[in-house]
Amino acid sequence: MKVGIVGVGCSKFGQRDVTIQELAFEAVSEALKDANLSQEDVELSVVGCVGTRGYELMPAVVVNEYCGFAGKGPLRVEAACATGSAAIYSAYSSIKAGIVDIAIAIGVEKMTEVDTATSAAIGGRAGNYLWEHHFYGTTFPAYYAMHATAHMARFGTTEKQMAMVAVKAHRNAMKNSKAHFQKEIVVEDVLNSRIIAYPLKLYDCSPISDGASAAILASEKMITEHGWDPIWIESIGFSSDTSNMTMREDFVGLKATKLAAEMAYKRAKIEDPLKSFDFATVHDCFTIAEIMAYEDLGFCRKGEGGKFIENGESDFGGKIPVNTFGGLKGKGHPLAATGIAMVYEVTKQLREEAGKLQVDLKHYKALTHNVGGTGHFCWVFIFGR
Amino acid sequence: MKVGIVGVGCSKFGQRDVTIQELAFEAVSEALKDANLSQEDVELSVVGCVGTRGYELMPAVVVNEYCGFAGKGPLRVEAACATGSAAIYSAYSSIKAGIVDIAIAIGVEKMTEVDTATSAAIGGRAGNYLWEHHFYGTTFPAYYAMHATAHMARFGTTEKQMAMVAVKAHRNAMKNSKAHFQKEIVVEDVLNSRIIAYPLKLYDCSPISDGASAAILASEKMITEHGWDPIWIESIGFSSDTSNMTMREDFVGLKATKLAAEMAYKRAKIEDPLKSFDFATVHDCFTIAEIMAYEDLGFCRKGEGGKFIENGESDFGGKIPVNTFGGLKGKGHPLAATGIAMVYEVTKQLREEAGKLQVDLKHYKALTHNVGGTGHFCWVFIFGR
Repeated sequence: MKVGIVGVGCSKFGQRDVTIQELAFEAVSEALKDANLSQEDVELSVVGCVGTRGYELMPAVVVNEYCGFAGKGPLRVEAACATGSAAIYSAYSSIKAGIVDIAIAIGVEKMTEVDTATSAAIGGRAGNYLWEHHFYGTTFPAYYAMHATAHMARFGTTEKQMAMVAVKAHRNAMKNSKAHFQKEIVVEDVLNSRIIAYPLKLYDCSPISDGASAAILASEKMITEHGWDPIWIESIGFSSDTSNMTMREDFVGLKATKLAAEMAYKRAKIEDPLKSFDFATVHDCFTIAEIMAYEDLGFCRKGEGGKFIENGESDFGGKIPVNTFGGLKGKGHPLAATGIAMVYEVTKQLREEAGKLQVDLKHYKALTHNVGGTGHFCWVFIFGR
Repeated sequence: MKVGIVGVGCSKFGQRDVTIQELAFEAVSEALKDANLSQEDVELSVVGCVGTRGYELMPAVVVNEYCGFAGKGPLRVEAACATGSAAIYSAYSSIKAGIVDIAIAIGVEKMTEVDTATSAAIGGRAGNYLWEHHFYGTTFPAYYAMHATAHMARFGTTEKQMAMVAVKAHRNAMKNSKAHFQKEIVVEDVLNSRIIAYPLKLYDCSPISDGASAAILASEKMITEHGWDPIWIESIGFSSDTSNMTMREDFVGLKATKLAAEMAYKRAKIEDPLKSFDFATVHDCFTIAEIMAYEDLGFCRKGEGGKFIENGESDFGGKIPVNTFGGLKGKGHPLAATGIAMVYEVTKQLREEAGKLQVDLKHYKALTHNVGGTGHFCWVFIFGR
């Protein structure tokens, strides 16, 4: 049973003065309108939300009631910053299993209201709290800073190359009306911004954003009946890794990304990603993360990610445009909303509705790469039209 | 693709001086041994855990690393007190979709360590925090107390009938070595215990327990290859309901239970549950919840639940023995562990390995009924051997 995306929605990302359910509804209503469906047509609602320090400890029921899915929403999923992809997966596997024909995946996060910003995302709780955060004071930027210094030491990757990721992200985000940042920056802005965890500076980090996103998935049977022009989910790959960073083999990449990509590529029979995809969206929570993703996803060899961005290979006109929508760095990173927002952007691109950010399509194929924590979770999805 | 249960494990429930990962491992190691598998054979691990006020904000990675499933665990699920069933569902749908062949569902909760006991479960956060808990002070026993008073007013259900549910639970739990309570009680003990939320008294409430449970699911193909004698998952039904209790039609039952049962029965072609099942496990977080479950699951007509327990119809030798393992009331209710512990008990019964608690099997069919919050989530599973 093939499964396709038939409707997508995304709220404006940024500091938003609304509740999580109101934020979710912005994305849900856009997705329903996009698919020309009403709530009654949806059989299953999967809510992704990490924000467990907010006043809603169990957010799914509140979101589902407000969005009109009471009766349809029997679970919430969480996979740290990859929660949105986990929600897509739950909807996808439910349809592929023949249990339902139409499902919605909703991702929502109020990062500016709850203290996940410090206690979850930045606080290192996505890893092992007791050993790494409590005893050693490791914060989330510090985890990625260890990756950055390892990459610099082993391969000579430079702070300037990392800065180029941020510059590209901001430049693209300026053309995306949903993006948190609408401000162009240059390499010197990044290099001169204050240090958060060496070598990562303020502009190497994705922002603390509120946001919501939603995607409606349908079975091939229902797609034929409705006459939709869907974006097909061609393959899904997943992996995870140890909680403790001390248990990892090295810090120059994410093993979970490699394993998830391997699974997704194998299932979709992808031999060479550069010859298969028109563009890619990858998890750039920090600039070094995007550089490692180029390598771990097979866009270039291990250690050549710095050169890849420097040579413009991940920009429009390059070997594979990456994060044309602005990425997590430019559009924002409201944890659970991120993975589904990636699907939103891929859908717009593959439908050729991406406006000023439209890439030239040849293969009509793309991938999303969504990481939770520091590779604690990873999902790679392959989409085609 | 048929899916079966091939291995189950359950920790001792009670106040446990171990971490969540150690607790989970007790259940996981028993399940692996039961299925004669090692961690390498498992392709997907789904961790259910609600306990978000503990120090592990994102418990799945910690549990997976300790249990040997790093690489296999790409998501956590949550559905309040029905979280365990949501984890079973995720494993089930992943296999049924043909994505993996062997998956494990793990449920774990440290209720005595974190303050979920007050802030989540008892605090009413399973419902709508802002309106009902914050403004009106509604606690979790108070929600079920409203159901109890409504049932008493409409149908003449008595406190004594509710007490009988607790007495049965304790009597059965005494014969279950995994149970939190190992103490026989009589109706007067319940009636004379202190009031928690009228008419619910201390002994009408399930305890605050730590616990973990695990179930290994496999595809029919793999079951044939391994030569397992599985418990088949014949059907799954789910529903959910409004966050706000004020939006509900009435309080004498749970609409989510009725809808979930309807879906499960329809898919398994069950016409009359009393003629189809040898026994049932239902969600008795409070005694009134079990009485409502008799009715909502179709074991008796609406309003006759009180008479059903009074006449011994839910006891050994009755029309349908319910919660022969001691229920949530007697065995304990460590939120996420509960739904999978139900599957553990059903598996033991259907294999005729339930010892002193064994029921006579005729149909070799049973159901589990797992509720999150006050019907905010509901899962009904039908099992057969």
